[in-house]
Amino acid sequence: MRVVEKPQDLQSKLEEAQREAGAAFGRPEVFVERYIKRAKHIEVQIIGDKHGNLVHLWERDCSVQRRHQKVVEVAPSWSLTRKLRQDICEAAVRLMKSANYIAAGTVEFLVDADRGDFFFIEVNPRVQVEHTVTEQVTGIDIVKTQILVAQGFKLHEPPINIPPQDQIQTHGTAIQCRITSEDPENKFIPDYGRISTYRSPAGFGIRLDGGSAFSGAVITPYFDSLLVKLTAWGQTPHDAIRRADRALREFRVRGVKSNIPFLENLINHPAFIDGSATTTFIDTHPELFKFTPPSRPGH
Amino acid sequence: MRVVEKPQDLQSKLEEAQREAGAAFGRPEVFVERYIKRAKHIEVQIIGDKHGNLVHLWERDCSVQRRHQKVVEVAPSWSLTRKLRQDICEAAVRLMKSANYIAAGTVEFLVDADRGDFFFIEVNPRVQVEHTVTEQVTGIDIVKTQILVAQGFKLHEPPINIPPQDQIQTHGTAIQCRITSEDPENKFIPDYGRISTYRSPAGFGIRLDGGSAFSGAVITPYFDSLLVKLTAWGQTPHDAIRRADRALREFRVRGVKSNIPFLENLINHPAFIDGSATTTFIDTHPELFKFTPPSRPGH
Repeated sequence: MRVVEKPQDLQSKLEEAQREAGAAFGRPEVFVERYIKRAKHIEVQIIGDKHGNLVHLWERDCSVQRRHQKVVEVAPSWSLTRKLRQDICEAAVRLMKSANYIAAGTVEFLVDADRGDFFFIEVNPRVQVEHTVTEQVTGIDIVKTQILVAQGFKLHEPPINIPPQDQIQTHGTAIQCRITSEDPENKFIPDYGRISTYRSPAGFGIRLDGGSAFSGAVITPYFDSLLVKLTAWGQTPHDAIRRADRALREFRVRGVKSNIPFLENLINHPAFIDGSATTTFIDTHPELFKFTPPSRPGH
Repeated sequence: MRVVEKPQDLQSKLEEAQREAGAAFGRPEVFVERYIKRAKHIEVQIIGDKHGNLVHLWERDCSVQRRHQKVVEVAPSWSLTRKLRQDICEAAVRLMKSANYIAAGTVEFLVDADRGDFFFIEVNPRVQVEHTVTEQVTGIDIVKTQILVAQGFKLHEPPINIPPQDQIQTHGTAIQCRITSEDPENKFIPDYGRISTYRSPAGFGIRLDGGSAFSGAVITPYFDSLLVKLTAWGQTPHDAIRRADRALREFRVRGVKSNIPFLENLINHPAFIDGSATTTFIDTHPELFKFTPPSRPGH
């Protein structure tokens, strides 16, 4: 990949890329795409049935990424205007309806944070890790709905009962943090071993999607490093961030390292809070990796 | 206490009760109350501020009790008519407004399941164990609101932002199960010891309010036997019951006995599912105490 910053660099960068492609793949063809310097990753949850019904469940903002891997996801995006949000969701529905799409899927876009226009990236024809935040703000169980759709049920009839598109609203804000057995102080190298102590937060507005994490669990290097997903819901983005922060601080994971201190830095960063974080946020903010020794007992 | 079933028994039963009161308390006065044979326990969540604003957050059905201790609570009640629900909530607001009530509180009623009328019992001027189900269906954080009210904030302004009464709606249904270290096969005697293994359910619609329960925790006889509260939310009562059932089956508590098998019997009982269970439900349904040996591995 080459980024062309100035028109006069086009010819030489193009030739460089073609040479590299030819050497790597035996074919020198390359794609030319618009470069978006400050991009927000916005994706739209879609669900369609076998009878021609298809709705969107609004958008998620998954801009906070590390090496194209999402780290924190929110729904709805608190940085989009109402019109942009509506336009993106309608574009996603048009695309998926024209493909007669069935089941849960996601249409991913990049939004140019400087100009406000948006560009299609790809469709993920599956349930995604971050579907939790959409479930929290819409009240719609995406996994169950997908199974019922596969059985042949209709979206707007029992037992699915999704309301018509113009009545599908979002309530409040949800934030998901992916808690992994990765060491943020050491380039996120996955750690493994036996979890000697595991305690997780609870209470109003806290959802956990766990599996491999419990006291006594052995984390091996052979599987994904995801321990548990924390989803915090609140009436406002501020409420959801404060609740996620409280929950992260209540976790106790001992025996393996985790990325929790990094997630705490991240969700308390002004650029995350004001919605201006773009896809390069983690790479360009080294202060996210400054950890103060924990002062709280027993952490 | 004496129950008078026939008018001709009134005189003798009254005298019996008066003698008993005189012997026990030195004063023979007694209260005469209407006896409700088949009663549903319905209570209304109230919250008032220091500026004269007071709203209800709808009702909870806490009819499933054992020795006047609530076991499973739901919101909203799926056995009330819309009119009865509205009347009970309005009665609670009238009472609490006339007392200039401030903070969170609950007005408790008995509903005569045969006649459909309702009777005031008492006010609980505090946050109750079962407040979780109201939070789940209204999206309003009762604990936080109470603290903000105590600080002097107004209900309908930032940072509380509760909408006006006619816009406070319930979404879906929530069920709370109180999971205790009590042995249902042995008259609910509290068990104690070290919890060797503790794993809890998770995912969409599952809220836990824990504290004393984790792997390695020591349960002593000196405190309440409540280990964790499980709250399951669903779009319909059916959805919420199915989700609560799944969650109960996913719990792993070893080292101390728990009431989980009893709770599983309870929420799957036809009288609980159809909303007809009254306050004598547990005492009059011995089949709730028939436990089949668990067939699932590792339970």
